[in-house]
Amino acid sequence: MQRILNAETTKYLGKSVKVCGWVNTRRDHGGIVFLDLRDRSGILQIISTPDLAKEIKEEYVLEIEGEIQKRPIKMVNPELETGQIELKAQSIKVLAGACSLPFDLKDLKVSLPVLLDYRPLTLRNKKIKAIFKIEEEIISSFRKTLKDLGFTEFESPMIVPTTAEGGAEVFHIDYYNHDAYLAQSPQLYKQILVPVFERVFTVTHVFRAEPSVTTRHLSEFISLDAEMGFIDSWQELMDTCEMVIRAIFSDIGKIEATLPKLTEKIPHLKMREAQQIIFERTGRDNRKEIDLTPEDEREICQFAKEKYGSELIFITHYPTKKRPFYTYPDPEDPKYTLSFDLLYRGLEVVTGGQRIHDYETLVNNIKKWGLKPKEFKFYLQAFKYGMPPEGGFAIGTERLVKQVLGLENVREASLFPRDMIRIDQRLSVFKKSKKSKR
Amino acid sequence: MQRILNAETTKYLGKSVKVCGWVNTRRDHGGIVFLDLRDRSGILQIISTPDLAKEIKEEYVLEIEGEIQKRPIKMVNPELETGQIELKAQSIKVLAGACSLPFDLKDLKVSLPVLLDYRPLTLRNKKIKAIFKIEEEIISSFRKTLKDLGFTEFESPMIVPTTAEGGAEVFHIDYYNHDAYLAQSPQLYKQILVPVFERVFTVTHVFRAEPSVTTRHLSEFISLDAEMGFIDSWQELMDTCEMVIRAIFSDIGKIEATLPKLTEKIPHLKMREAQQIIFERTGRDNRKEIDLTPEDEREICQFAKEKYGSELIFITHYPTKKRPFYTYPDPEDPKYTLSFDLLYRGLEVVTGGQRIHDYETLVNNIKKWGLKPKEFKFYLQAFKYGMPPEGGFAIGTERLVKQVLGLENVREASLFPRDMIRIDQRLSVFKKSKKSKR
Repeated sequence: MQRILNAETTKYLGKSVKVCGWVNTRRDHGGIVFLDLRDRSGILQIISTPDLAKEIKEEYVLEIEGEIQKRPIKMVNPELETGQIELKAQSIKVLAGACSLPFDLKDLKVSLPVLLDYRPLTLRNKKIKAIFKIEEEIISSFRKTLKDLGFTEFESPMIVPTTAEGGAEVFHIDYYNHDAYLAQSPQLYKQILVPVFERVFTVTHVFRAEPSVTTRHLSEFISLDAEMGFIDSWQELMDTCEMVIRAIFSDIGKIEATLPKLTEKIPHLKMREAQQIIFERTGRDNRKEIDLTPEDEREICQFAKEKYGSELIFITHYPTKKRPFYTYPDPEDPKYTLSFDLLYRGLEVVTGGQRIHDYETLVNNIKKWGLKPKEFKFYLQAFKYGMPPEGGFAIGTERLVKQVLGLENVREASLFPRDMIRIDQRLSVFKKSKKSKR
Repeated sequence: MQRILNAETTKYLGKSVKVCGWVNTRRDHGGIVFLDLRDRSGILQIISTPDLAKEIKEEYVLEIEGEIQKRPIKMVNPELETGQIELKAQSIKVLAGACSLPFDLKDLKVSLPVLLDYRPLTLRNKKIKAIFKIEEEIISSFRKTLKDLGFTEFESPMIVPTTAEGGAEVFHIDYYNHDAYLAQSPQLYKQILVPVFERVFTVTHVFRAEPSVTTRHLSEFISLDAEMGFIDSWQELMDTCEMVIRAIFSDIGKIEATLPKLTEKIPHLKMREAQQIIFERTGRDNRKEIDLTPEDEREICQFAKEKYGSELIFITHYPTKKRPFYTYPDPEDPKYTLSFDLLYRGLEVVTGGQRIHDYETLVNNIKKWGLKPKEFKFYLQAFKYGMPPEGGFAIGTERLVKQVLGLENVREASLFPRDMIRIDQRLSVFKKSKKSKR
C-alpha cells in the first residue's frame, strides 16, 4: 500500500490507508490508546488497542495501516485539519525507536542555551519549526519580487582575498599557505556584476567575528543582497527596498506572522534629524555621534510609531566617516552619504545606499580609507571599463525574522546559530586550538 | 523622460525615447556613426552624427535620447530582436567612460588564466554571460521541482566544528581561539532536518582544499543538496534524482543548451559490473579498485551511449570502504553500499544514497571509521530521538553546467573560481601567509 500524508486522509473516509510519522503524544484511556501522529502535513489521531501500541513512546517513528473513520461528535477537534476523523490502527510497524525525551517537547520551556544544545530535537516543536517556514517564505518572496523586476540571481563566493569592510571582525582561513578570509558581505561581487547583468541579487552567507555576545549579532548570517545600475537617484534604491519589504510582509501574512503597522509610504529622517528628535524627547545628547546607538534606534522607532503610525522608518545620510570607502557622498554636504538604514521595531534590518561609480574617485577613496588600490585591482576593473550610477541594499534575514515574530534573541531565528561561544555544541567542550592563537 | 529597455523600443516606432547601456561596438561610416548599445534586455542600434558621438568608445556607459525609426530594408538584421529598427540619437550623455580594452571583448580569444584575471570584464561577453543564466536556471529548476514535491528549503551553515567527510581536504578557520572548518558538505545538517521537515533541500556552498589543479575540481563550489525521509527503498532516491535532472534539462532547453540524449529511464550498473565491462572493452583491469577512475567514468559513459543511447548513467553499489560512515550497507552484501553516482558525458555530476538511520548502528560505524562519537553528539540527537529510513543526493552545479555546455574546464562554469592558485587574482601576487604554515 502507498503511504499517504496525514492531511490527505480526510478524503479516505471508510477506506484503508497507510500513514507514516512521529508520535507527537500518547494518551492511554482505559482500553484505548490515542496517538497523535505527526508528519510534514500535520497531525492525525490514531486509535489503537494497548496491545498494538505496546512499547510505543513519544517521537517513535511509525508506519500505520488502518481504516479512516469519523470521530464521535464529542471528540471532534475543530483546531485540527483532520479533527473530524481518526485512524483505527490495524497494524503498527516501528520504523525507529526514540530515547526518553529530556523535556516536554510540545510545551517547551527551556532556556536559550538548552534550546540550542538540543537544537536537532527542539526544532521538531511546532512553534520553533514555524520560525523557519517564515524564513523560507521571506527568502522566497525576496527572490520573486526581484526576479519580477528583471534582477538576475547569482552565487557570491565566501572565500575572499581581502577585508573590504574593515579588518577587525573578520575570520581568517588557512588557504594553501596564503591568507584568505570569510566574506563579510558580497558587496564587491554584486558591484562587479552590475555591468554584466545591470540588476543582481544573491541569497548568501556572511561572516563577522563579533567580539561580544549580544541579542542582535551572529557570527554567520543570511544576507539578502541586491544591487542595481542606472538609478535615477538614490531614492530609487529606497523605493525598491520598500517594494521588497512590503512584498515580504504581504507573503508572510498568508502564513501567520503579526504584521507591522505600515503607512502608505515608509517615513524617513536624516540621522542628524533623528538625533535631534531623540535629544528633545529624552535629553540624551548623541548629536555629535557618528551612528545611532541601539537605544537611539529603539527611541526613534517609538517616535515613528507615535508620530507617523509606522513601525518602520528609514534613517538616511550617515556620516561619510562611518561608512565604507565605496559609499557615495552627498554632493550637497560631502560629510554625509547617500546611504540609508531601515529600522523595524527598534532594530536595523536593512542597510543600503548609492555607491561611487567613477573609477578615479573610487581609487582616491580607497587610498583615503588607508587601503591599497593594488589589493582591489580585480574589483576596480568593473569601474575602469564603464560602470553606471548604481547602488543597492542588504537585508539581515535573521533580524527580520526576529522582529516579525517578536523573538527575544536573533539566535532563535537561526537554524544553527554560530557565535563566540557556540558552533552547534558549546565551544567549551572542545580543546583550544594550538593553531589559532593570535 | 523615463528610461525604457532596448527590447521595449520596438513598441515606440516614430516616438522619442530614452535608453541606457554600454557601447558594444562603434562603427564609423563616412558621415554616420553606428553604435550598438547593450543593456540587460539586448542590443539596440544607434545612429549618430560624428559630432554627438565624439570621444565615445567601447564599454562607455551612455544615456541616449532620440527617435525610434525603421531601418532601411537592406540594413535589417533578422538575428536581433530590435533588428527592424534603430534609434536616431538627438542627445548622448556619457554616464561613465571606459579605458581601452586589453582584448577584443566580443570575439574573445584569450587563455583561461587571462579570462579569469579579467573576470569582471570578460563576464560582459555574451557567451560567457549566458553560462551564468544557465546556472541560474538550473538552480531555479532544482528549487521548483523539490518545492512541488513537498520539500522545505533551508540554509546550511558554512562554519562547522568537525570534519565529517574526512580530514585532509578541509580548510581550517581561526574561530575565537578554537578550531573550526569550512563545510565540505551540508550532509549532517540536512539529515538533522529530516525529523523536522521530512523532506529538505539547500542551495549551498561547499569547500574542498583540493591539493592539485584539475579541470574538474574547485576549492569552493555550489552544491544542490536534497534529503528525504520515509523512503520505501533506495531506488526512490534515484527516481527523485532523475526527476530533478529531467526537469533541469527541460527547463534549460527553453534557453538554449545542447541537451543530452536521454532514454525513457536512465540506465544503471553496479560499480563492479561497470569495471568488468571496462575490462572487457579496453583490457584495463581496475576490477579490484574501490572507485572508478576519471578514465573509467569516460569509458563507461561511452559504453552507455553506444549500448543504451543514453548520455547519462547511474553507477551504484560503491564499496563501503570508499564511502563516508553514514552510508547504508547493502543488506545482501555489506561490503557494498546502497549508494549511487550519476555520470554525465564522462563526469560524475551527482552523488547520493541511503543513510544509516538506526542510532546504535550509526554510533558503531562512527567508531569503525576511526571518528569520535563525542564529536558527533549534536548530530546524533537526530537519530537518538527517532529517524525514519532516509537518504538523499547532491548535485555539483558547476560540473553540471560544464557538461551541459561542453566547457573544457569547470572554472569556466564558476563566476569567481577559487583554487590553489587563485582567489580572483593569482595568489602569487600576494605574500605568503606567516600564519598559515602547516
